[in-house]
Amino acid sequence: MFTKCSQRAANIESFKVMDLLKRARELESQGCDVVHLEVGEPDFATAEPVAEAAIAAIRAGRTQYTPAAGIPELREAIAGYYQTRYDLNVDPVQVLVTPGASGALLLAFALLADTGQTFMMSDPGYPCNRQFLRFLQAGAQLVPTGPAERFQLTEALISEHWQSQTAGVLLASPSNPTGTLVPPEQMQAIAQRVRQLGGQLIVDELYHGLTYGADAMTALQVDPDVFVINSFSKYFGMTGWRLGWLIAPPEAIKMMEKMAQNLFISPTTVSQYAALAAFQPDSLAIFEGRRQAFEERRNFLVQGLKSLGFAVPAMPDGAFYVYADASHLTDDSFNFCWSLLEENHIAVTPGADFGQFEASRYVRFSYTTGLVQIEKALQRMAKRFSATR
Amino acid sequence: MFTKCSQRAANIESFKVMDLLKRARELESQGCDVVHLEVGEPDFATAEPVAEAAIAAIRAGRTQYTPAAGIPELREAIAGYYQTRYDLNVDPVQVLVTPGASGALLLAFALLADTGQTFMMSDPGYPCNRQFLRFLQAGAQLVPTGPAERFQLTEALISEHWQSQTAGVLLASPSNPTGTLVPPEQMQAIAQRVRQLGGQLIVDELYHGLTYGADAMTALQVDPDVFVINSFSKYFGMTGWRLGWLIAPPEAIKMMEKMAQNLFISPTTVSQYAALAAFQPDSLAIFEGRRQAFEERRNFLVQGLKSLGFAVPAMPDGAFYVYADASHLTDDSFNFCWSLLEENHIAVTPGADFGQFEASRYVRFSYTTGLVQIEKALQRMAKRFSATR
Ligand SMILES: Cc1ncc(COP(=O)(O)O)c(C=O)c1O
Ligand SMILES: Cc1ncc(COP(=O)(O)O)c(C=O)c1O
Repeated sequence: MFTKCSQRAANIESFKVMDLLKRARELESQGCDVVHLEVGEPDFATAEPVAEAAIAAIRAGRTQYTPAAGIPELREAIAGYYQTRYDLNVDPVQVLVTPGASGALLLAFALLADTGQTFMMSDPGYPCNRQFLRFLQAGAQLVPTGPAERFQLTEALISEHWQSQTAGVLLASPSNPTGTLVPPEQMQAIAQRVRQLGGQLIVDELYHGLTYGADAMTALQVDPDVFVINSFSKYFGMTGWRLGWLIAPPEAIKMMEKMAQNLFISPTTVSQYAALAAFQPDSLAIFEGRRQAFEERRNFLVQGLKSLGFAVPAMPDGAFYVYADASHLTDDSFNFCWSLLEENHIAVTPGADFGQFEASRYVRFSYTTGLVQIEKALQRMAKRFSATR
Repeated sequence: MFTKCSQRAANIESFKVMDLLKRARELESQGCDVVHLEVGEPDFATAEPVAEAAIAAIRAGRTQYTPAAGIPELREAIAGYYQTRYDLNVDPVQVLVTPGASGALLLAFALLADTGQTFMMSDPGYPCNRQFLRFLQAGAQLVPTGPAERFQLTEALISEHWQSQTAGVLLASPSNPTGTLVPPEQMQAIAQRVRQLGGQLIVDELYHGLTYGADAMTALQVDPDVFVINSFSKYFGMTGWRLGWLIAPPEAIKMMEKMAQNLFISPTTVSQYAALAAFQPDSLAIFEGRRQAFEERRNFLVQGLKSLGFAVPAMPDGAFYVYADASHLTDDSFNFCWSLLEENHIAVTPGADFGQFEASRYVRFSYTTGLVQIEKALQRMAKRFSATR
C-alpha cells in the first residue's frame, strides 16, 4: 500500500467537473443522450492544412527532439504573426515554444515566483493557475471580481490588494470562465501600475482570435516587457497537439529555455511542423469561419439562458464560455449542476471550479457544441423550469 | 531589461554540451564535416507502422485532449506489454501515460520528495534528474560510483549514504551515460533495503529493449511497489513524439494523475494513437533489427576506442553510450571534448555533464550514428593520437 505523499502533491486539487464527467459517461453508457456544455475545447477537428502539414512532417521523418525553445521556423512564424495580426515587431528570440500554454504558464511562474511569493489573479479564473503555483510552493492570491469589473482585475483592485510577497499579476483576456476582455486603457494602467510596484505582469491571451466584436489587443502593445502566454489549442483548434508559446524579454526567455530543456527536452516535433501551417491564409480562413460559428452560438445561448431566468451579468466578448448567474433558479450551483446532469442530461461546469467568490451562484456553459445540441439543452431546461415555476 | 528571477530558476543548469553543439553547427555552416557522437537519441526514423498509425489518427480527427492519464487503450497496451515482455501482471490503473519520461520523472519526484528532501542517485547519471529536484526545491544526493560498482548504486552504498532527509533512491538501468545494468540480485537487495529505510525506489528503465546480452529484468519483478519509469523515446524510436509512462501503485497513480491534469492537461494525442502501433509484431521486429545494429556499433566503437588508448572500465550492457576513460590522453576531459571538436570535428559529451565524480576523466561517446561515421571518427582520432605519441 502506497502511503508517502509530499505536501505539494497533497495540496493539488483536481477539477470538480471530473466527477460529473464520470457520471455523464456512465449515463451515456446506459443509453442516455447527454448534451455536453462543459467541454473546454473546440468541437471542430484540426483544420485540413494543419493536419496535412503534420502528415507531411511524419512522412519526411521529422520526429526527433527539437531545440528546447522550438524549431527556429516556428519561432519566426509566431513572431511574424504578431506583425500581421497586431502590427507589432516581435523578435524570434522573444518567442519560446512550449508544450501547450500549460507548459508556458509553468515556466513563467517558475521563473517569476519564489517559494512563498504569490501571483495576484481574479476569482473566478482558470483553475490550473492556482495549482501551478501550489506545485511550486508559491501561491495564488485570488481577488474577488464580479459583474461591476466584468470579472477582471483593475488597476484599483491591484493597488488595493498588493502585498509585500506579491510577485506579479496574471490576467486572462478573454477570460476563462467569463469570456470578458480587459479594456485597452485598463491594460495600459495595469501594466504601468504593476511595473511601479516592482512586479511582473503575465497576460494569458489564449482565446485571442475568438472574439465577437472588436479584435483583442495584445498586452505587448502597451508594454513590451509583459509576459504573454498563447497557444495553438483554442483559436487554432489544436488542443491535443499540446503546443503553446510565450513572449517575453530575451533574457527571461533564456532562463525559461534552460528550465524547458531539463523539464520537457522539447515540445512535440510533429505538432511544431503542423503549427507552421496554422498561419497560412487557407488555415486562417477556416479559423475565421469557426469564429463566426462560435459567435452565432454565443448569441443564441446567451439569449436562451436569459429567457430561462439565468442572468448573464457580463456579455462574453470572446472565448466559448458563458458564465451564467443561476441564483434565480438555485442557491447552490454545484448541486444544480448535478441535478442538470441527472434529471436533464446536460453537463455543465459549476462555478466552484473557478474559485470561491460567489461561486455557488454561477455555472459555466461552454458553447463548444453545435446549435442543435445547444437548442436541445435549452428546451430541456425550459421544460424543467416551467414545470417548477 | 528583465532582472527578476526566482532562486529556483537561477539554480537550474543547462547542459555543457549545448555550447559544443552550437560551435558544431557553426563549423558545419562553414562546411566542416562534423561527426556526431554526442546525440542522445536513435538516428533511425520512427518505424513505418507507428508513423502510419499516427497518420491514421490524424485523418480520423483524433486530435483533441485525452484523459490526463492517457487513452485507456494505451494504458491497457502498456500493461499488456509487461505481460508479454516480462511475464508480469500489471493492471492498467497502475499505468500513467506522460509527456515523455521527462514528465514521468517530474511527477514522481513531485509526489515523493518534499521541499528539502533528497533523492539518492549515482554520480555519474542523467543530468536532468538533479534539475527536476532543484525545480521542486528538493535535491539530488549524488553518490560517487566508479568502475568497481560498474557506475551503479549498490545496497551497501545506499545503506552507507542514507540520511534522515533522504526520500528515496533513483536507479537507471541501463544507465545514461554508462549503459550498465543493475544486476537482478542487487536490484532485489536494493529494493528491500530502501523499503526498510522507509524510502521509495524509482527505477528508470528507459533503455530497456536496447540491451546486448541478456534481456533486462524490470524492477517490478522484484518489488511490485517500485516506481518504474519508461518511454517510447529510445527503444521505440519516438523521441520527438514526447511520450513516456510510469508504473506505480494505483493510489500513487491517482495522486500523480491529479498533478498531470493541472500541469499538462494530457499527453499529445496523436502520439498516443501512434504508440499503440509500437507493440505490434511488425514494429517489434523493426526494433529488434535496430537493436542488433546498435549492438554491432557498440562492439565496433568500444574496440576502436580501446585501441586508441581509451579505457572502457565497464562494458556497456545497453543503451547507446560508451563512457570512456580518457585519462591516458588528457587530464581534462572537458577541454579534450572541445579540442576534439575544433581539431577533429568530432562532437562528444564531456563527463562534466553527468556529475562531478572523476568527471574530468570521462567522455561519453554515443553510437547513435552509423558504422561509417563511427569509423571516420576513430580514424581521425587515430591520426591525432599517433601524431602526438
Ligand atoms: C485560460 C486558459 N489558459 C491556459 C489553458 C491551457 O491550454 P493549453 O495547455 O491547451 O494551451 C487553458 C485551457 O483550457 C485556459 O482556458
Ligand atoms: C536516463 C534517461 N531518463 C529519461 C530521459 C528522458 O527521455 P524522454 O523524456 O524523451 O522520454 C532520458 C533522455 O535522454 C534519459 O537518458
